[in-house]
Amino acid sequence: MPAKGVAVTADVVIAGGGVIGTAIAWRAAAAGLDVVLADPAHGDGASLVAAGMLAPVSEALFGEGALLRVNLLALARFPSFAAELEQVTGHRVGLRREGTLAVAYDAGDYAALMRLTAFRRLAGLEAEELDSRACRKLESFLTPDVHGGVLFPGDWSVDNRRYAAALREAAAAAGVRVVRDRVAAVLTAGGADGADGRVRGVALAEGGEIGAAQVVVAAGSWSGAVDGLPAALRSVVRPVKGQLLRLRHPDGMPPVLTHTIRATVRGADVYLVPRADGEVVVGATQEERGPDLTVTAGAVHDLLHDAMSVLPVTSELILAETCAGLRPGTPDNGPIVGEAGPGGLLLATGHYRNGILMSAATADAAVACLTGQAPAPEWEPFGPGRFGAGEAAR
Amino acid sequence: MPAKGVAVTADVVIAGGGVIGTAIAWRAAAAGLDVVLADPAHGDGASLVAAGMLAPVSEALFGEGALLRVNLLALARFPSFAAELEQVTGHRVGLRREGTLAVAYDAGDYAALMRLTAFRRLAGLEAEELDSRACRKLESFLTPDVHGGVLFPGDWSVDNRRYAAALREAAAAAGVRVVRDRVAAVLTAGGADGADGRVRGVALAEGGEIGAAQVVVAAGSWSGAVDGLPAALRSVVRPVKGQLLRLRHPDGMPPVLTHTIRATVRGADVYLVPRADGEVVVGATQEERGPDLTVTAGAVHDLLHDAMSVLPVTSELILAETCAGLRPGTPDNGPIVGEAGPGGLLLATGHYRNGILMSAATADAAVACLTGQAPAPEWEPFGPGRFGAGEAAR
Repeated sequence: MPAKGVAVTADVVIAGGGVIGTAIAWRAAAAGLDVVLADPAHGDGASLVAAGMLAPVSEALFGEGALLRVNLLALARFPSFAAELEQVTGHRVGLRREGTLAVAYDAGDYAALMRLTAFRRLAGLEAEELDSRACRKLESFLTPDVHGGVLFPGDWSVDNRRYAAALREAAAAAGVRVVRDRVAAVLTAGGADGADGRVRGVALAEGGEIGAAQVVVAAGSWSGAVDGLPAALRSVVRPVKGQLLRLRHPDGMPPVLTHTIRATVRGADVYLVPRADGEVVVGATQEERGPDLTVTAGAVHDLLHDAMSVLPVTSELILAETCAGLRPGTPDNGPIVGEAGPGGLLLATGHYRNGILMSAATADAAVACLTGQAPAPEWEPFGPGRFGAGEAAR
Repeated sequence: MPAKGVAVTADVVIAGGGVIGTAIAWRAAAAGLDVVLADPAHGDGASLVAAGMLAPVSEALFGEGALLRVNLLALARFPSFAAELEQVTGHRVGLRREGTLAVAYDAGDYAALMRLTAFRRLAGLEAEELDSRACRKLESFLTPDVHGGVLFPGDWSVDNRRYAAALREAAAAAGVRVVRDRVAAVLTAGGADGADGRVRGVALAEGGEIGAAQVVVAAGSWSGAVDGLPAALRSVVRPVKGQLLRLRHPDGMPPVLTHTIRATVRGADVYLVPRADGEVVVGATQEERGPDLTVTAGAVHDLLHDAMSVLPVTSELILAETCAGLRPGTPDNGPIVGEAGPGGLLLATGHYRNGILMSAATADAAVACLTGQAPAPEWEPFGPGRFGAGEAAR
């Protein structure tokens, strides 16, 4: 950590070392930029708690067409990004392409799934309707009580922890310097209220500054705590608590799942994401409770109850870990990626439920901005300007 | 740990450092004996996983009259033992005397509770029948769905972790030496098959011996793994797996319980034990699975489900810890306390569900044996001889 008064400079400072910030750091350094990444707990935030679903199709909801398009862009980009990451680091990140099986527990759940499936097909997405027997043919441990389901072959998963660890390693190998401190403020020069000025660096929470002509705020739920953002952005990102469970197979038990299962159990959503190493991630709650990271008895009960309702063998698995994280939510559920306020300030935050999925495409968009190019058009609707923060002129 | 070949001697070696072994060690040292206690993980076994119920009354089952009598002896002894422990160490052990409220969820559960209550009253035990409203008057967070209950004012609880820690401290202060190794074998001298000889010490698993004229085997579920015991005792103690949960109140939430609750929910038993520091212990499964210490999804679900059925506010508590332990069970559910086999060998094991409760009285009985006195008559039915191991002549 730079001592107070010591001059540290870089081309770019990135505030936040989750998968978004670290992916940007890696790609920016690979593009030749001198990058400092600042995070007090590098890689210890929401990225670790995630399940790693890469699921634009089974996540697509009515009214979120623009989000679907950027998610599809992100999914299309993911495999080559992951392949390069694996090549650079020599570590597998656990990308699984078996597809996602959405199952409906009762007739009401099934009707809701059919309505969403029709909408997803209208958007050109692949979906295969399956009766209860066909669901069990794909996943033999599903309960016969399941009413029916839909296979979304285009929805994959990645081991979010391996992926995040590989990103950190790739960033370090590319020359990214990590400062274990929080960016307290974006510093600007010129212009009375900042918005007209230009970024000149950041101030760290424990003292010291880093000089840089460009700053990326990728601080997830904590993005609003960074001083110097345009006023309109300060309270746009809110934490949405998610609790999830990590289960493991007992020694000698063969894998109970091949596909990711997304189940609706009497209106409640639960997912089960299998890993090659025998882990099964079960999630997740969505709770508006501010920055609360407690694991509650009720949430653990409900997740286990719903998982066991569709996959009774879940009861035999080992409960290896319970955890809670804070998704960075925004008013329209879309991410915030683009330039804002003073020249040289870039936002890459608010990825809500899709941070892992969007990380590769977000890195592309951010590096485009940092190097004076245009991001893909799918990002157009997701600039900070939509919340009233003027985008800086290029 | 003594190096191989180095002569270590003591008056008594105690194999096992749970609450039973440590309580005996403390009292034996206080009685003037030179004591070595051997345990590879001193205080890290079933004693830590326990809930700390001191509940002879609400544990009393048909056909277990002798066990009830020794449990009542143990409860009567506990307060003075705990008071001395608190005085010696300066630490509180969290003894709570509010009593235990047994509640029955449905009419069938209530009928079963009434049958047991009649039996317990026949044994002279105090029990106060309460309707659903009276139960809620005692514990306002109970669901109105509870059919009714019985207050057993004589059943208390202690914070098993504070209690175990205080015992370790008291033992150390009394001069007990701790060897962090497992007793692999009891060594004897004279007599062809051991049973006619006399104890001369123990062999440690990692090498080395400790010379002593008396050995106490207090190794819980692992007692049968000690070589040199009479053959009949080697497979008498079996591990009975118990899983339980430690919940905590969120900051600012007032205590949700005052009494220990023992609930029967459609035939399934669950208990909730409140602590002064805001912890609530919820337990426990009883599983015949050998020495398996995994925490399973199904057990956690069922415990939470049953607890929430009678005390819905449980869902708001923090799930702080899940754990599993191995109770040392015996064929007749009674402990094994007394002399056996070669002269100088004492057993103090097999305490099953009542190790914390019986620890003080077991220490008294063991110290009586070690100093040539007679244990209380309530112990008579619980000697090793009942499993075919000849008791040594005094």
